[in-house]
Amino acid sequence: MKSISSKQNAWYRRARAAIHQHDREIVIEGPKAVADAVRVGWRPIAVISDGSSAAEGEVPLDAIVFTRELFEMLAQTRNAQGIIGLFERPIHQAAAILASRGSLIVALDGVQDPGNVGTIVRLAAAFEAEGVLLLPGCADPFAPKAVRASAGAILNVPVAEVTPEEIMASQLPMFAADRAGIPIEPPQRAAILILGNEGVGVSPPLREASTVLAIPISSRVESLNVAAAAAILLARSYVLRIG
Amino acid sequence: MKSISSKQNAWYRRARAAIHQHDREIVIEGPKAVADAVRVGWRPIAVISDGSSAAEGEVPLDAIVFTRELFEMLAQTRNAQGIIGLFERPIHQAAAILASRGSLIVALDGVQDPGNVGTIVRLAAAFEAEGVLLLPGCADPFAPKAVRASAGAILNVPVAEVTPEEIMASQLPMFAADRAGIPIEPPQRAAILILGNEGVGVSPPLREASTVLAIPISSRVESLNVAAAAAILLARSYVLRIG
Repeated sequence: MKSISSKQNAWYRRARAAIHQHDREIVIEGPKAVADAVRVGWRPIAVISDGSSAAEGEVPLDAIVFTRELFEMLAQTRNAQGIIGLFERPIHQAAAILASRGSLIVALDGVQDPGNVGTIVRLAAAFEAEGVLLLPGCADPFAPKAVRASAGAILNVPVAEVTPEEIMASQLPMFAADRAGIPIEPPQRAAILILGNEGVGVSPPLREASTVLAIPISSRVESLNVAAAAAILLARSYVLRIG
Repeated sequence: MKSISSKQNAWYRRARAAIHQHDREIVIEGPKAVADAVRVGWRPIAVISDGSSAAEGEVPLDAIVFTRELFEMLAQTRNAQGIIGLFERPIHQAAAILASRGSLIVALDGVQDPGNVGTIVRLAAAFEAEGVLLLPGCADPFAPKAVRASAGAILNVPVAEVTPEEIMASQLPMFAADRAGIPIEPPQRAAILILGNEGVGVSPPLREASTVLAIPISSRVESLNVAAAAAILLARSYVLRIG
């Protein structure tokens, strides 16, 4: 089969829209990440390859082959190793996540770095949080950098935008992580854990409505990276929950 | 004073060497990071600014002023916000770190991503590890991306390269983090915690000489990011140590 070389090709345009707008479809990069998604039951809309056979072998699907030049024009391909998968964008509602009464719900407030947002989505999967809610000012969780940091977990963890008012109306106990808080254990069930922007923390109205908890740290540093704080609190909550 | 505009200028060449080779001097980017380093007692060799007065105000030192064009040619300035500080590169020896018998020593094995290495240096400061040892295959901890991720902690935490043989000769108890290990608490004192490359884990000779410990995670994910694993284990060790 002839490799596709035209920027007018419908698959090229669709992959490009998934990378740049990602409002209906998203892109997972790299043979390992695509194979992992397929293994846990996701069905790609299409797999696109640059024709380098080594990469293709890992993906159990026929790929649409682009010329190397066209593939590279999709950008974000530095981590793709010759393979990208096009998947339907998962759509979740904040109300459904807030209605869950199982484990923790993570809410991010002004977390601007897409790598941190993606890493926290991966942590939410690792420690079985109910979902990740994004308050205003967060990076787009479906942008390629965030999807990559999530290591595919973006397909498995409910993620939705939310307003402070919706969170406060949920009646769930709220916990905000902040250096000025008290060093208590994180909640284990049916609660919202709010993590803020590294510079300014959780915004005042939410903070005031929350129990403010701190991770004990040395006076040698000012703060923890927000993804590190999430890792510590979610891991501890999980260990306490599973006993 | 006239702004410096020449690539032949000695300060330009020194800053460039610090960014690219960093074998004697390193660069800390951004007014906040430079001010933080000064606050905890580090004395910059020089502070270089692009002449934008807003950024300079945060740094309590006279800056050498480059034209904006020259400043931008230093690269890595996207995060510098008009200010970089030139500092002496801290030099530590693995033997001195291994001789410490206080808290934990962190050893990284093949951790290739400079952001992860820098984040782990920051965590070592936050949770008072004795130092960070770099086994073969790790990213350069003094490269700008790692320095940035360390949030200045690279100046405060002893970091040195090490061989597997030196680690094994230290007689310190060794613990390797790996999904296939046992879910025990991390060590609290006078021990080495080894964290491996995400793909291949800790290399076999070190692993075989170690107690292999696992962080309990859901079967929904394959693994944790290495910096997330470090955060969880170091935070837990610190809480157990400080009681």
